[in-house]
This record gives sequence, structure tokens and C-alpha cells, in this order.
Amino acid sequence: MSAAAAVRQDGPLALVCGGGTLPLAVAESVSKRGRVVVVFALRGHADPTLVARYPHHWLRVGQLGAFTRLAHAAGCRDVVFIGSLIRPTLWNLRPDFRALMLLPRIMAAYRGGDNHLLSGVSKIVEDQGFRLIGAHEVAPEILVSEGALGHIDASAQHRQDITFGFDYLRASGAFDIGQAVVVAGKHVLAVEAVEGTDQMLARVADLRAAGRIGAPEGIGVLVKAPKPGQDRRFDLPSIGPKTVAGVVRAKLAGIAVVGGTTVIAEPERVVNEADHAGIFVVGVPGGNEQ
Amino acid sequence: MSAAAAVRQDGPLALVCGGGTLPLAVAESVSKRGRVVVVFALRGHADPTLVARYPHHWLRVGQLGAFTRLAHAAGCRDVVFIGSLIRPTLWNLRPDFRALMLLPRIMAAYRGGDNHLLSGVSKIVEDQGFRLIGAHEVAPEILVSEGALGHIDASAQHRQDITFGFDYLRASGAFDIGQAVVVAGKHVLAVEAVEGTDQMLARVADLRAAGRIGAPEGIGVLVKAPKPGQDRRFDLPSIGPKTVAGVVRAKLAGIAVVGGTTVIAEPERVVNEADHAGIFVVGVPGGNEQ
Repeated sequence: MSAAAAVRQDGPLALVCGGGTLPLAVAESVSKRGRVVVVFALRGHADPTLVARYPHHWLRVGQLGAFTRLAHAAGCRDVVFIGSLIRPTLWNLRPDFRALMLLPRIMAAYRGGDNHLLSGVSKIVEDQGFRLIGAHEVAPEILVSEGALGHIDASAQHRQDITFGFDYLRASGAFDIGQAVVVAGKHVLAVEAVEGTDQMLARVADLRAAGRIGAPEGIGVLVKAPKPGQDRRFDLPSIGPKTVAGVVRAKLAGIAVVGGTTVIAEPERVVNEADHAGIFVVGVPGGNEQ
Repeated sequence: MSAAAAVRQDGPLALVCGGGTLPLAVAESVSKRGRVVVVFALRGHADPTLVARYPHHWLRVGQLGAFTRLAHAAGCRDVVFIGSLIRPTLWNLRPDFRALMLLPRIMAAYRGGDNHLLSGVSKIVEDQGFRLIGAHEVAPEILVSEGALGHIDASAQHRQDITFGFDYLRASGAFDIGQAVVVAGKHVLAVEAVEGTDQMLARVADLRAAGRIGAPEGIGVLVKAPKPGQDRRFDLPSIGPKTVAGVVRAKLAGIAVVGGTTVIAEPERVVNEADHAGIFVVGVPGGNEQ
């Protein structure tokens, strides 16, 4: 922890922000600790309201040269990536000159699964003289703790589905696939890949409405876990109010994530809305084995 | 084979027909061999045009008593299930008296994954004095052979995606999940669960249109395989003209299935349409390991 603590105080922090409310939570947490935050807002992803509260620069994905210059000028050595970012196509990247010079490496990182992409990108960022750290290292309160977050806990039956889901995600993680699955009565209803958790939950709601799900309403759990070998500085599984809304629409019983390695956006709202809807949100121990 | 050959000639064949054109192909093939076919058409699933060509009875899913009585009266001992059948909800089952008596066992079969459901159902059918056999045993020409079906073959790059896909399906099959996956550049774009292959392909097309797929058009393969331990008398992976159309819309390079353990509907049309669209359809050896 002392090394991490030293890192946190090492000058202004460059916060590269995608979409959602998580970047705001991280920026607030880091600011409260007395560290200067410089926001690099990704155009088309980051929320302009958040951006206005901090010293900031707007960037397009792919503007590596501009980022390097501006972040160095602001005295940032540590960089945190946070927020949702829909995987851009190469066509949309519009790389600047420096990124263009690195294009062969970016292309190599682009092939293969997400882990491959992310580790390639982090290597490139570090080669520019930055230190890439995880959002949870500078704002540990964004992580889900272990146990039930609200008033409702998972039953023994739900625990069986949760175990089944984690077992599946451990097996499929070797193939660098998505981080989420919906399990009902030990039957997998949906597996997340490129579409993301929200779209997967919408699919389950549609299948339910079409009478194609055998399990009755109130049976079924959304299970999320980090992929084995996932670079946690870059991409932890996350949940938020949208996740709760999706689970409610899909008429599932609750949400299970790995405690200590899952990020939560707007935790109070998540707990209130989950309690109100009668669904559980649990952090399950075992992040180390995932 | 001699036992199988004996089975084929054992009196009239009860053909329980779901949707699609496969039941027609099987009925034709069996009839051509000189065996009487009695069609049991599932209401809401089977095609009335097919049904009209053969002695037939309409049944609802769940009418086990009626099926048993009618099939015995027709002198059928062998039963083949063929055609698509959207997994019915218990609510829609409307079981008749005999099925009601067996409800605890049907319920038990209903929990868990598809394999569990299917093996439960086949056990129940066999307990009524029938012998459940595979459609491919009475109509071997419905199976995909090994090698390229049309003029186009998979390249070395596509072969890597195919191997990756089969490896994934072998690992995920232990969890009794769907039988198909879309792989592009060793990156999994979509995994099939309850939604089925057609809906999964539609999702890939949507993600592509939304710019959320990094791989360029013409990279990516639909890979299908039987689940390990799957009851092949009941549920083999299948492809048909709809699959080709879905692959074309998703802008993938082709389709890979396991030769000898995959059913193909309207093979000539599949080959013509695949050739015309410039996509490959290959049967890969290795059904035994799947």
C-alpha cells in the first residue's frame, strides 16, 4: 500500500474520461484527497457537465500526440482511464501524427480480444512516459464491497446460479470474452460478448416477453466477473443504476459481482433502486480466483 | 450399422415435426426408402403444407397421451423428433392427462439446461414404449459432409477463427449453453444462448451497423458445434438458407460446422446462396471430440 499511496500523491492526475457517471465519482474522490485532477474528456463519450467542473481538455480517441503534450505540460505523470468507451472502429479512430507513427503497434493491439487490445494500449501510453494506474487505486470507494449491498440477500437457490455463473465466466474468460452471463435455474439464458451488459439484459427481457424463457419471473441472476488476466488498471467490470433497471426489466432476482474487483457507479442510487424493486446486489468473495 | 439398419425397417416411423423445412426432407428421405411415415405435427410450429402430404395428426406440445395412443394405433415403435421448436414455457404447455401424471418428472427435466430437458423428455417418451432415434439415422443425407460445400473454402486466417470457435464451444459446452459463436480475428463477437443462431447473427449485423465491431467486413466466422454429451437423437446443430442470409447480413466470411453431426436444411439452396454471396460453408472433421 505504501507504494500505491506514494503514487497517488505524485503530482496532478490525468483522468482520461469515457461515458457514464463513474468519472465524476473518481474525480470527486481524488480531489477530496487533495490531489489535482486534469480531465481529458473523450469527445462523444464523456459528459460535458462533469468536464466543466475540472480543468479539462477535449480529445478524440486516437489523439495520442495531443494527450501526451497536454498531460506533460500539466505536470501529470499518472494516468487513469475511467468510464465507458464503446470499442471504436479503426475507421473512427482518426489517429493524430504520433498515433500514426505507432499505428503498426496499435493495429497489432487491435487484433485479438479485448485484453490484448487493452494491454497493447497501456504499453503504448507507458512508453510515452506515463504511469497507468487503476481508478480503484486512487478512488477505492468506487469498488463493490463483499456481502449484500442493500436489504435483500441472495437465497440458497440464487447462490447456486451465482456459483454456476462464476464457474462459466472462469471457463470462458480464457477465450477473452465478455464479463457477464445471466443464469436461471442453472440454465444460461444469455452470454455477453461485444454487445455489453445493458444490451444483453434487454435481450433477456425480450426473450421473457416472447415466452421463450422457461424459468419463472424472479428466478435468474446477472453474474459479472473480471476476466482472468484482465488488466485491472484499465477495465474492471462495473454496475450502476442502468444495470439495476435492466435486471428489473428482465425480471431477474438480482446481481452478483466479485467484491473488491467491481466498480459501482452511484452506489446509493443502486442500493435504493434495488431495494425498492426487491432485487439483491451482492459482492461475492473470490476476486483472486477470477 | 446393422442394428441401425434394422431399426430403420421396423414398421411405420412416427415423425414428430416442429418448424422449418427439415421435417419435409426427412419425411421424403424415409418415404423414398420405402418406409411408411406418420407425421405428428406440432401446432404452431409445423408447416401445414408438409403435413398435408403424409398421413398426419396435429398435436399441441404437451399432448403426450394423445401422441402415445395415436402412434401405437398406427403401429409406430420408432419415433424421430425433427424441426425447430421454440422452448415452450410451462404455462404454454397445456399438458394432457398422461402428461399431467408425469408432471413431476417433466418439471424435473425442465430445470437445468437444454441437455437436461431433452434427456428427460426422451426418457419419458421411451417409457411409453417407443424407441427414440435420430433423424440422421433414418435420413443420413440431412447431415453436412466434411470439406467445403460450395466453391469457396475457408482461408488459413479463417481456419484460425474456426479453431478458436470450436475450442470455445468445447469449453462452454460443459455448461450446457448454446451451440454457436461468432469469431472474428480470434475475438468473440457474440455467443448464442437462448436466443438462437438467427437472433445472434442479427445482433452481430446490428453491432456492425453501429460501428461497434473492430474487425473489417469479410472477417469473421459463424461456428456451430454439438454440445458435449448432447443427445444427438434429439437435437443436432442445424444450418439452412436462413443461416446463410444471417451470415451475409452480418458481413461475415462464412460458416463452419462439424461434418457428420450437423443437419442441413435445403442443402442445394444453401450452397447456391452461399456461393452467390461469396461466403464459405465448411464441414470440419472432429465431430467425435466435440
